[in-house]
Amino acid sequence: MPTIRDVSKLAGVSVATVSRLLNKSGYVSQEAEKSILSAMRELDYSPNEVARSLAGKKSHTIALMVPDILNPYFPRIAKSVEREAEARGYNVLLCDSDHDPAKEERYFETLRRKKMDGIILASYSARPSGLRELLERDFPVVSVDNVFDADYPMLAVTADNRGGARLAVRHLAESGCRRIGHLRGPRGVYTAEERYEGYKEELLQSGIFEPDLIAQGDYSAEKAYSATLALLDRHPRIDGLFAGNDLMAAGALQALREAGRQVPGDVKVVGFDGLDMPLLAQELSTVSQPIDEMGATAVRQLADLIDGKPIERTERRLGVSLIVRGTTGVSSQDSLYP
Amino acid sequence: MPTIRDVSKLAGVSVATVSRLLNKSGYVSQEAEKSILSAMRELDYSPNEVARSLAGKKSHTIALMVPDILNPYFPRIAKSVEREAEARGYNVLLCDSDHDPAKEERYFETLRRKKMDGIILASYSARPSGLRELLERDFPVVSVDNVFDADYPMLAVTADNRGGARLAVRHLAESGCRRIGHLRGPRGVYTAEERYEGYKEELLQSGIFEPDLIAQGDYSAEKAYSATLALLDRHPRIDGLFAGNDLMAAGALQALREAGRQVPGDVKVVGFDGLDMPLLAQELSTVSQPIDEMGATAVRQLADLIDGKPIERTERRLGVSLIVRGTTGVSSQDSLYP
Repeated sequence: MPTIRDVSKLAGVSVATVSRLLNKSGYVSQEAEKSILSAMRELDYSPNEVARSLAGKKSHTIALMVPDILNPYFPRIAKSVEREAEARGYNVLLCDSDHDPAKEERYFETLRRKKMDGIILASYSARPSGLRELLERDFPVVSVDNVFDADYPMLAVTADNRGGARLAVRHLAESGCRRIGHLRGPRGVYTAEERYEGYKEELLQSGIFEPDLIAQGDYSAEKAYSATLALLDRHPRIDGLFAGNDLMAAGALQALREAGRQVPGDVKVVGFDGLDMPLLAQELSTVSQPIDEMGATAVRQLADLIDGKPIERTERRLGVSLIVRGTTGVSSQDSLYP
Repeated sequence: MPTIRDVSKLAGVSVATVSRLLNKSGYVSQEAEKSILSAMRELDYSPNEVARSLAGKKSHTIALMVPDILNPYFPRIAKSVEREAEARGYNVLLCDSDHDPAKEERYFETLRRKKMDGIILASYSARPSGLRELLERDFPVVSVDNVFDADYPMLAVTADNRGGARLAVRHLAESGCRRIGHLRGPRGVYTAEERYEGYKEELLQSGIFEPDLIAQGDYSAEKAYSATLALLDRHPRIDGLFAGNDLMAAGALQALREAGRQVPGDVKVVGFDGLDMPLLAQELSTVSQPIDEMGATAVRQLADLIDGKPIERTERRLGVSLIVRGTTGVSSQDSLYP
């Protein structure tokens, strides 16, 4: 591979002159420019990207911060982000915070030093100070599936969590459920709060809201499994369950099966996310988020921020849809497999 | 943030002198070195990592190439790679080839230009030319879960695929199965071929090998679903099924359910991978790979290559174990959930 030194030799100018031209950082005579460009062509020399990034140019690398790539929601986000990024000439650094605020802060520090062009934040830890510093310097950051508080003014790409929850609960009520429980996502997490609010609003409006039918989960199947068993113990006559995400719905289905409840006969279940996991015993009715569109939109918005386009740092909320399947009574002939 | 210029001013030396010291690339007087180091401390200056990487130093970034992050095997690999890498001060660039050889080649080209320190290859496309170029230049590459042919001399971290397949099939035979089918992974893919060979060896040895009981899959649940239905059609009396991976086992379980076969009563099923997916209706008997250890080992070996340690570019094969659960007859009380 030719180097800048080879170019300077062939062009008969100093390395510093070639460097000034590449970085547009000082005077280069027309004659020198001409022979440098001709030498570059002859040698098929493309300036090293690291060097260009040093010169204040773009590194063409963005970071994607997720809380846990093992949660099947995040590979979906990663896939859509990576696809759109690659198509636009960006590479994606995968930062898995492992739900660990200290690791997240280490990443913000690393990202600052490494000159990323921008960050897509799909993690939901509380109030990272490294993030605030980046935002104060107007560093391009887009949040996905989360809205931070006013201290973190940031463009956010979300789905209509509240509206989706209302759709789910209305569907359960319209299917005849009268005691509709809720497996809540983790406290303080934006999506979990919004889905809970939607659940509550809809049931208050129908006059069948019972606060005691709410069980606390943490978006994992394991916790949902034990929380559902406990909820069934307290309220054996629950006939509907809205799980705050699909993973919790999977844990709940296992608990219902072990507790001897028929789904959808005794209890109907709706999840949230629309992961289309090919592994569930029963096809899950769920609120489908446009995950691919969310990832792609986040990259497009981030690219605009990186390019310095004047865009508002507010929420972009995408629509959701209800998918009705076996866990609310549709025959399992409507299989996920064609 | 202080720059090299600030350091040079405060130290009273030229920028070039500071740069020589940082890059250990030429003579710097003891006196100059002392004042530069003191200026760096005073300004809390840490040399920009991009600049250091330009100077031939490490970028502390490695790439992880996967064929599809939506296949739940690869988030497991990504998680373990990311964890070990972060602990060692490396960042991980996520490259999802989307099973597209052209995209994979684009990535090799990008990685060459961007000065990665090394690559962990968990994708399994045929014979990338960009990869051969990198290997010819002794670029650090470690393959995970795949062994390339002799044209690609590479350190590979694998699991004992053949031995694991034999374990699975022996378990089915010992559980009373006599007509044991196999859902094969994609042709030409190392792990799929090894698992098929193990299946065949074990059944030949038991004298119950029937080539017609083999169905071609592609490691996806969807293809496994239709292949299993077709296999049941041809051979209604199949009583055991060894799926080449857990995803295919999931697809097979759905097909068996729809075909009205009881698992494990009529047909016993064993998968391969040990993904511990919390979403299966029935706890799957499976051959468990030490996926976390595979990812971590790959990073350790890659770090050694990057550090120039003399290590052999051969296969490191890790042991596997059989996990017996509900799909081969163990009560579903042995739940995944404690």
